[in-house]
Amino acid sequence: MPVGTQATVKGLTADQLIGTGAEMILANTYHLCLRPGHEVVKKLGGLHRMMLWDGPILTDSGGFQIFSLGDLNKVTEEAATFKSHLDGAIIRLTPEYAIEIQEALGSDVAMVLDHVVKLPNSREVIIDALQRSVRWAARCLAAAKRDDQAKFAIVQGGLDETLRLQCARELAPMGFDGFAVGGLSVGEPPAEMYRITAATTPELPVDKPRYLMGVGRPIDLLESIARGIDLFDCVMPTRNGRNAMAFTSAGPIKIRNAVHREDTRPLDENCPCIACRHSRGYLRHLFVCDEMLGPTLLSIHNLTYYQRLMDEARAAIEQDRYQQLLDHHRRLWDDNVPKAAAAMKASGPSSS
Amino acid sequence: MPVGTQATVKGLTADQLIGTGAEMILANTYHLCLRPGHEVVKKLGGLHRMMLWDGPILTDSGGFQIFSLGDLNKVTEEAATFKSHLDGAIIRLTPEYAIEIQEALGSDVAMVLDHVVKLPNSREVIIDALQRSVRWAARCLAAAKRDDQAKFAIVQGGLDETLRLQCARELAPMGFDGFAVGGLSVGEPPAEMYRITAATTPELPVDKPRYLMGVGRPIDLLESIARGIDLFDCVMPTRNGRNAMAFTSAGPIKIRNAVHREDTRPLDENCPCIACRHSRGYLRHLFVCDEMLGPTLLSIHNLTYYQRLMDEARAAIEQDRYQQLLDHHRRLWDDNVPKAAAAMKASGPSSS
Repeated sequence: MPVGTQATVKGLTADQLIGTGAEMILANTYHLCLRPGHEVVKKLGGLHRMMLWDGPILTDSGGFQIFSLGDLNKVTEEAATFKSHLDGAIIRLTPEYAIEIQEALGSDVAMVLDHVVKLPNSREVIIDALQRSVRWAARCLAAAKRDDQAKFAIVQGGLDETLRLQCARELAPMGFDGFAVGGLSVGEPPAEMYRITAATTPELPVDKPRYLMGVGRPIDLLESIARGIDLFDCVMPTRNGRNAMAFTSAGPIKIRNAVHREDTRPLDENCPCIACRHSRGYLRHLFVCDEMLGPTLLSIHNLTYYQRLMDEARAAIEQDRYQQLLDHHRRLWDDNVPKAAAAMKASGPSSS
Repeated sequence: MPVGTQATVKGLTADQLIGTGAEMILANTYHLCLRPGHEVVKKLGGLHRMMLWDGPILTDSGGFQIFSLGDLNKVTEEAATFKSHLDGAIIRLTPEYAIEIQEALGSDVAMVLDHVVKLPNSREVIIDALQRSVRWAARCLAAAKRDDQAKFAIVQGGLDETLRLQCARELAPMGFDGFAVGGLSVGEPPAEMYRITAATTPELPVDKPRYLMGVGRPIDLLESIARGIDLFDCVMPTRNGRNAMAFTSAGPIKIRNAVHREDTRPLDENCPCIACRHSRGYLRHLFVCDEMLGPTLLSIHNLTYYQRLMDEARAAIEQDRYQQLLDHHRRLWDDNVPKAAAAMKASGPSSS
């Protein structure tokens, strides 16, 4: 899911978003509750009408902001109380209010309000947040008035496999339409994230979607699919695109680099996106001149890259060659940047 | 002509530019000579290939920068010498070099290098610049190597009708493919610009296009068409769009205003552009949140507005009702802003 925090995937029109192959997008409860306000969104016809997006929309619940806004909030059993990052206004987010907001936004999937804590943390704090997340999940389910909106639970439990299993087992029978693995991708090493994902998914119903929140790099998506995940969201394709970094079938490209100055080749020979109808030299020029078309084109390219990667993953699973795909990308996206650069150079722009 | 100073009409992809109805665009010799450099543009296949724009491209010559960069340049009979606004590097622009650059850029129409001076100015300075502009025009014509690139002359002469006539008469027989009226829209009152335009066009060949450089507001375009002008360029539709101002058939709209907060109507009921598939409330939200989609959508809308205005002008001329069209827009775009606002309120969003 491309991320449309403020009811816009940054820099893309609705048509361009459809053109990337995206089928489902994410928007943000906390940000939209502040601006323009969920009642305004409702008056403007809901998120779909506002954005001209016909596909499914998932809204997160504000739980991640409990974590990311840190000192600006306080959690009690009743509610998370935020200080707005915009004007300091106090927002008191109960599980019931998180659902009310999401129903007003008109998303297709509402996430329960969960209590996300930073990692590492004491076992006591992690258990407390886990148990509160389960109680809040039940309150969200009880508060829901719309039967046309799916509800997804969120598994917490830090980096402790036993706690994750316990949380998943408690949430699994509660009647949710899907299950998320939350509280990861908050700074822990990728191997830890993979380990926890692998430990959690066996306890989740096989017939309902599993969603790994806030992940991630292309290799993270592939590693997590191998561990039973179906759905992802991440700002990386758009944020990196705005910062002049392109994902390609031959590895990452930093388009501002002088080596691209007179390069007539596209970012990726096999990519059908509109950015790849232009030369690398032109894309570099746009970034060097701070022209807004540069961020837009690289965002389109990166979102297209991610969607095509997921297409490849689906095809590889069907054709029983997923391990090969994973091995290829493990080599390509190695954390060692010089190696990734060497891979680019060795394999050329048209290899895949 | 939408303005693509740095080989991009700010914020629009090639497809979106085509979607506005634009048929011809402008790019800038001075800026492209600095970044990425005209030799780089040539290596990247020329402006058309870089931008993916198949329609005609006109390049200005750098003459306007002689005026606008003021203290950063010096003019002698041989050349205009600029200090780059980017890094202070010295660029010596002769008429011959201005043509060489434009031939490397690969535009369809090259403008001659002209000497633009600020207004008001002494008669002596204006005559000196006029005479130099005519000599430079001849040098440009003599320097041209490509016979697939049209050359347009530029009439100078300040706000003096006699000098304008003299300049037009000197340039008319020199074999140019088109004629521009230059040195206007530099701060003089609109009525002065109309007066000079009206005085100049009768001396220009009727079978060649006449281009009023750097103009302007919708009413300026219509007033100038009435005085014999065929072609315009202006940053106003894109610059104003980026600054949250929309042109509509009912007058101007400042989309940041709180009155649009919950407005479900489009900017303009009759406009076919993609911005007008969204509500005003959503467009306002994008600007309030500093989302880049806002400037992109309003630029698309304003460029579409300008193209449709020119369509209307052509139709009105053919149907012998141009005066009615002009009268309507004189009332709509009156300099009196409260009146324009009242017009909006009175006529509603769907009137035209």
